[in-house]
Parts: sequence; C-alpha cells; structure tokens
Amino acid sequence: MGPFTTERTVRFSDCDPAGIVFFPQYLVMLNGVVEDWFGDALGLPYAGLIGPRRLGLPTVRLEVDFTAISRHGDHLRWEVSLAHLGRSSFTLLHDVMGRPDQGGGVRLRARQVLVCTSLDTHRAQALPDDLRAAMQAYGARAATGASAAEGERRAP
Amino acid sequence: MGPFTTERTVRFSDCDPAGIVFFPQYLVMLNGVVEDWFGDALGLPYAGLIGPRRLGLPTVRLEVDFTAISRHGDHLRWEVSLAHLGRSSFTLLHDVMGRPDQGGGVRLRARQVLVCTSLDTHRAQALPDDLRAAMQAYGARAATGASAAEGERRAP
Amino acid sequence: MGPFTTERTVRFSDCDPAGIVFFPQYLVMLNGVVEDWFGDALGLPYAGLIGPRRLGLPTVRLEVDFTAISRHGDHLRWEVSLAHLGRSSFTLLHDVMGRPDQGGGVRLRARQVLVCTSLDTHRAQALPDDLRAAMQAYGARAATGASAAEGERRAP
Amino acid sequence: MGPFTTERTVRFSDCDPAGIVFFPQYLVMLNGVVEDWFGDALGLPYAGLIGPRRLGLPTVRLEVDFTAISRHGDHLRWEVSLAHLGRSSFTLLHDVMGRPDQGGGVRLRARQVLVCTSLDTHRAQALPDDLRAAMQAYGARAATGASAAEGERRAP
Repeated sequence: MGPFTTERTVRFSDCDPAGIVFFPQYLVMLNGVVEDWFGDALGLPYAGLIGPRRLGLPTVRLEVDFTAISRHGDHLRWEVSLAHLGRSSFTLLHDVMGRPDQGGGVRLRARQVLVCTSLDTHRAQALPDDLRAAMQAYGARAATGASAAEGERRAP
Repeated sequence: MGPFTTERTVRFSDCDPAGIVFFPQYLVMLNGVVEDWFGDALGLPYAGLIGPRRLGLPTVRLEVDFTAISRHGDHLRWEVSLAHLGRSSFTLLHDVMGRPDQGGGVRLRARQVLVCTSLDTHRAQALPDDLRAAMQAYGARAATGASAAEGERRAP
Repeated sequence: MGPFTTERTVRFSDCDPAGIVFFPQYLVMLNGVVEDWFGDALGLPYAGLIGPRRLGLPTVRLEVDFTAISRHGDHLRWEVSLAHLGRSSFTLLHDVMGRPDQGGGVRLRARQVLVCTSLDTHRAQALPDDLRAAMQAYGARAATGASAAEGERRAP
Repeated sequence: MGPFTTERTVRFSDCDPAGIVFFPQYLVMLNGVVEDWFGDALGLPYAGLIGPRRLGLPTVRLEVDFTAISRHGDHLRWEVSLAHLGRSSFTLLHDVMGRPDQGGGVRLRARQVLVCTSLDTHRAQALPDDLRAAMQAYGARAATGASAAEGERRAP
C-alpha cells in the first residue's frame, strides 16, 4: 500500500495578508492530519485516546522546510510516514504536495517527534500495547507498499 | 545590552484539551514576537514592511524543541537572537523560559530561518539596505551585551 | 432540494482546556462553510472572488446562540440558508446539529450579515450580477426544497 | 472610574488575505480581554477559575456589529462594561475603538452573554459568591465612573 495520504484545501482562514498560508496554520493542519492518521491508518480514533484514555501525544521536536508557498483555494496532498518507533516516542514524516494543476511541487516537508504521556502527570510513558501494535502493523504495510512502489519506479 | 527579550502570557485560547499550550499556538506567539523584534529591537515596524513596502518575510525553515509544557496563565520570557545574516535570509534563535514561580525552565527553543521576498512575485530578494543595517547594528549591540553577560557569569 | 448542508468534524485544535469547542473556532468553521457554500451551492469558488476579482465579503453583523457544547471528535451537520438578499448585502442563517449517536441536538444557530466590498477601497458595492443571479437561483431552489420538506412534515 | 479598558495591537496573524482583521480573530482577542477583565478588574485571575476551581464560563449568546475595518499594526482601545448580572449568567458589552491617528472610529461593538457552569457536568450553576461580589463591586464602581464621566461631558 505505501504511506497514508489525505487531502486538505487551503482556506481563507489559513492565509495571511500576503495571500499565502500563514506557517503556523500548516501546523494546525498537520495536527489534524495526525488525527486522521490515528483514526484512518491505525484504526484508533484520536479523540478516544485523548479523552477517555487520558493519553497525551505532545510534539517534542519539529523540523519543517517550507519549500514553496500555497495560496487560498489550493488543494494539498498530504503524505504521512512512520520513520521511527521507540518505547514512548515515535517519529512521523510529512510530505505535502500541491496539485499538478495548481503548480504542483513540494510545499513542505516536516519531521515530527511525538511522545506518549499521561495527561494527569504530563510525564512520558511507554506507548500502550494496542497503539504500538497498530503502529508496527502500519509500518509493515507501508514498507511493503513503499518497496512495491520503489520496485515500480526501478522497473525498466 | 544582549538579546531582545519580551514577555507573553499563555491565554485560554492558546491551550488545548490537555490544558497546555497547543504547539502551533507557540508559533503564532513566535510570529508576534518577531513582529516586536522588528519594531522594538530594529526600529522598523513590521506592519510598515509588509504593507506599504510589500516585503515578504516568510519562514523557510523551522526547528523547534518543545522541552517542557506551559499551562494557561503562565508568564513566558521570550529571548530572540540573530544567529546569522545572509544576503536575503537571516536566522533567529528563540529561547522561551517559564517564570521561576511558575516552574521556570526552558519551555521551547527554536531556530527559524526567514527569507526576504517580494510580495508581488514571492521570489527571494536581497534584504533592503535599511533592514540589513538595522540587523547588523542589532547584532553588534547584542553581541556586546552577550559578552558582558558571559563575563558576569564567569566572574568569580 | 432545500438548504445547503455540509459536515464538519471537531478537531483537537478546535477545543479548549474545558475539552469543548472554543467559540471563536466555531466561527472559523462557519467561514469555511461559507466558502463551501459559494463553491458548491452557488458554483462560484470563493478563492476566485477574493483573489482575482478583488471582492471582499466581510461579515458586518453576527448573532450566535451557542445552545449546546460540542466535544472533540463530534461530527456536526451544518445547514446554510439564504435569509435575505439586498443590493450589496445578504444574510445567511446557520443551523448546526450534532449527530444523533453523539447526543444530537442543535449546537449553535447563527445569523450572519455579509456585505460585498471592493478589496481596494474596502467600501460597499453592489453585488456583481453573476453573484446575485447565483444567489437568486439558490434561494429559489432552496425555497422549493423547504416547501417540500415542510409539506412532508405537515403530512399526517 | 468607569468601565475597564485595555489595549490590543492587531498582529499579522490576526489578518486575512484582504489585509484586515479576520472576524473570528476579533473574538479570540475578545476572549483574552475577558480574561484580563477577570484578573485586572475583578481581581480574580481567569486561569484560577478554570483550572483549580473547575468553573466553566462559556459564551451562550453573542451579537457583534463589525462597524469598520482594522488593519495590521492598528492599536485598539477595548472597553468592557457589565450590562447585566443574573443568578448564573452575566452580560458584557465590548466597545472597540481605533486610535485617533489610525483613523479612530468604532471598529466593533459586541454584546456577550456568558453563563457559569461546572466543567465536570457542563451544566449551568449559580455564580460563586466571590465572583458575584466582585462583579457587583465592579458594577458599582464603573457606574459611578460612568456618571462622573457623563457629568464631565455634559459640563458646559
């Protein structure tokens, strides 16, 4: 299959007086995409983790390259990969591309390290077993997809 | 003198259901602090650059370590340093600390690369002379301050 | 057919430390729904009005009743009606309901007056002919739908 | 003394592609002004009510007239009056004016009804005695100030 992908449309509310996406709004989008990744790719709805189970999933490290601007009305293709899975932390890679008829191109690339915490103590804790298992299964499926895709690209 | 510092109070609107600052809101704050840095430290009000002069100052690279949580009502001390000044880009370092009576500590550290563009073409362009001169003067003053401060810390 | 409807999911970023939607975020959603109404119900994409045509569509009057809370993960059904069409202004009614399996109920009702302006002067101007015609056609279609729906509700 | 006043500067992040304040951002500001009103005018810091005491203060009704635009860099004078004090609800009036050298004028007027709830049940409850007493004292002081101010304006 390959990595999880979803789409976002750039809203009026995402844009600044320069008429382009205000960079913190990309990170609001990114957080929503991570919600979708939990629910749609892992099968564990994010709201159920935060609310009833009192798991925190704060971002502790973020690196972003904003490589091209996006304008109001642009459709973005958002791709999420799991780059690392530790005991209590994991790393996601985000690749965001414009639609070919709207200039295409990579708009941003981000590397995000999240850590699992208790919302009662805000201390790091080991990822719960179901979360870890879902991430491992996702990683395996995505890797297979990626290999297949790489195979296709390599094929003469 | 040393680096530019300002203060921010964590608002209800900055916090998430976990009761702590939602990380993209730190970046909205950061952008406002950069506005203050232009106006108060460089003497060039940000709104005057963006509006009448049609200069863009987009962030092209961002690295953030979120080292400790901040809660609603926390007072943050925000310190901005100019780490690099290029032809069209410059790099700011942000150090954000809690107030001692609210747990103190470094809350986040960020490295932000901004580039000067034309808002008409969104292409990079050389920093205008007045902006460059103001940044050079700021860098010189801050470096002197920093050395003085380091001297104080080193003094037996 | 009846009024335009769309759906929204309450995101983590929409919620406050009380764990419920922070009321200004409902209005960010509302603005996005109005964008969808222009594009999907009127056939005039909002970004094309604001950008290339330099039309402003600011809200000049807003009345909202927040009748019930919404939580992270809730699915909202958003209904938009055109209540009035003037020379340069128009009035939209928003009815926002929870999904039956998430408590249902009316979450908010809003009455929003927008005015057409020039983005160059920020002065009110008559609605352009194509916009007015699209709104009239929408009003006629929606009224037919509404009458039909009312007829159904009245039927014994 | 008269009503509580505070100031806000319009930030880049408050503005939309039309270069003016995006209306939901006025309401984010308004919420921050209400925080300041609790802390500075009533002497009851908002964060202490929400967090430790688990009081909710949701807005249940909002009416806003956006009477003039505000631009990036504008300084706004924000005035808050207590218009009504009920058993569990109270009504605030907001008058927001531009600085004379930035066009002056009323930018917006809002009427906001808030209700006191329990954050555990989200049900309305009577305002706690200390909150009610602080609001009554504020109302009395502000009314005296208003009369005095009116007297001054009427004086020949």
